[in-house]
Amino acid sequence: MTDFAAWSREVQSRIESALARVLPNSAIAPEKLHAAMRYATLGGGKRIRPMLAFAAGEAVGADPARVEYAACAVELVHVYSLTHDDLPCMDDDDLRRGKPTCHVQFDEATALLVGDALQSLAFEVLAEPGACVDKATQVDMLALLAKASGSRGMAGGQAVDLAATGKSLELAELEFMHIHKTGALIEAAVLLGAMAGGMPSDAQRQGLRHYAHCVGLAFQVMDDVLDSETDTATLGKTAGKDAAQGKATYLTLMSAKEARVYANELIENALTAIDHFGDAGANLAAIARFIVERRY
Amino acid sequence: MTDFAAWSREVQSRIESALARVLPNSAIAPEKLHAAMRYATLGGGKRIRPMLAFAAGEAVGADPARVEYAACAVELVHVYSLTHDDLPCMDDDDLRRGKPTCHVQFDEATALLVGDALQSLAFEVLAEPGACVDKATQVDMLALLAKASGSRGMAGGQAVDLAATGKSLELAELEFMHIHKTGALIEAAVLLGAMAGGMPSDAQRQGLRHYAHCVGLAFQVMDDVLDSETDTATLGKTAGKDAAQGKATYLTLMSAKEARVYANELIENALTAIDHFGDAGANLAAIARFIVERRY
Repeated sequence: MTDFAAWSREVQSRIESALARVLPNSAIAPEKLHAAMRYATLGGGKRIRPMLAFAAGEAVGADPARVEYAACAVELVHVYSLTHDDLPCMDDDDLRRGKPTCHVQFDEATALLVGDALQSLAFEVLAEPGACVDKATQVDMLALLAKASGSRGMAGGQAVDLAATGKSLELAELEFMHIHKTGALIEAAVLLGAMAGGMPSDAQRQGLRHYAHCVGLAFQVMDDVLDSETDTATLGKTAGKDAAQGKATYLTLMSAKEARVYANELIENALTAIDHFGDAGANLAAIARFIVERRY
Repeated sequence: MTDFAAWSREVQSRIESALARVLPNSAIAPEKLHAAMRYATLGGGKRIRPMLAFAAGEAVGADPARVEYAACAVELVHVYSLTHDDLPCMDDDDLRRGKPTCHVQFDEATALLVGDALQSLAFEVLAEPGACVDKATQVDMLALLAKASGSRGMAGGQAVDLAATGKSLELAELEFMHIHKTGALIEAAVLLGAMAGGMPSDAQRQGLRHYAHCVGLAFQVMDDVLDSETDTATLGKTAGKDAAQGKATYLTLMSAKEARVYANELIENALTAIDHFGDAGANLAAIARFIVERRY
């Protein structure tokens, strides 16, 4: 665990520098938009998706200097989705990563444009010359990020979430939502990290996909557990919000204890799926374990 | 002019079919989001950007079947920007292309997600295998669309526009805004249409870029003239809105007559820039002339 703690700090520091470099300087016009993009993106977040990208890159032996582009791209898409999700017409939240949300700190129109421009920037970064060893795979990476972000991926999951608010969902419906809302981008993080080194084999892709699927659901199960058990200050975002807004969570379908058992089963499946990577998959395995052991 | 009228109807019909094909069916979940994406995109619009893409493709001899992807991608980015621009926190408009705007017809959260998902879809379409003859140029096309859409392109222009509302701008400041807000995507339409057939020569790219720059500004000059002279029913969007909101327009800096002279000068420059394409550039030339002669 000590090794993983050091590795994750290293990734967090690396991704922070990389994001600071790819985000336009706030002295460049339009200054307010660029300042707001930096405010929303820098200095916070667990950076789980970048960690997944780097760990998947390690599993297949991809050059970390290439994986960095994929790691930035998925984090930029993630931050754009949080910025839009916090807007008054969506979740109307005023706290994120321990700071006022973007539309509170700046204004609603700016936060809208921040999300829009961060999405564009994600594709710009992934289309940079260094992002992959070969151009054909790079086009596939761009296609994958687009699908994962769009109406049959993350944005679609948000729409399902909106439609489900105030309704009771069955487990299958709840998981359909999560597989889109958070699962699609988590899968993209894992696959893009690996693809930076060239197209992985079918067997590698299948293993990584199954790993991502299980880790994504486990992450969401634990989010619901932590959201119900942890205070706002520790979470850095408003605690208990989903339940208060009448959103379906795992805890409306099972007890916290059952949810933890379920998350652990998912993680066991995730570990089995990457078994064939051996030692190269050590950090993928460590991230999976971290997800069920985390406290915030 | 008769030939151009027939050609532009053909392009409009072709792009309508292509957009209807790339947009997810509204029977696919999330149904409401998909219905709203189709509502915002289909059945309206002048389709100037697709026309520019097809005409630029003709100028360099690109296969129209490939150009179609670029034409769809730029139109999807354009529609996403209109959908977000019409939201209450931006221009708060309720009429677009003669219909209620997306957030009026559906709701604000859905309109937000429509824009987000249309942007993703634009990149998804441009990353499809058929979109370019070679993968290296295709990556460059994706990079170009991302830059044109982002904070130093279209989204940045929106931010400048917001900051300028209620202020008097000098001509240089007004043109800085337009070059970003509408010019960047018009340039992308022209360059991407040409690049679908493989990377054009430096001389070709330079000519197309100068053409796009002039056409983009002339389009905006004429938009301001028409906005002041035409009624809402003919425009299909709220007339006189910019002036009412205290936005700087060309008509705050010059008379309508002077603006028409300026637009004609820009078009002359655009025609000179594409002179070397000869007959192959006929439709690019016709679009430039159409822009100063249009009535809505």
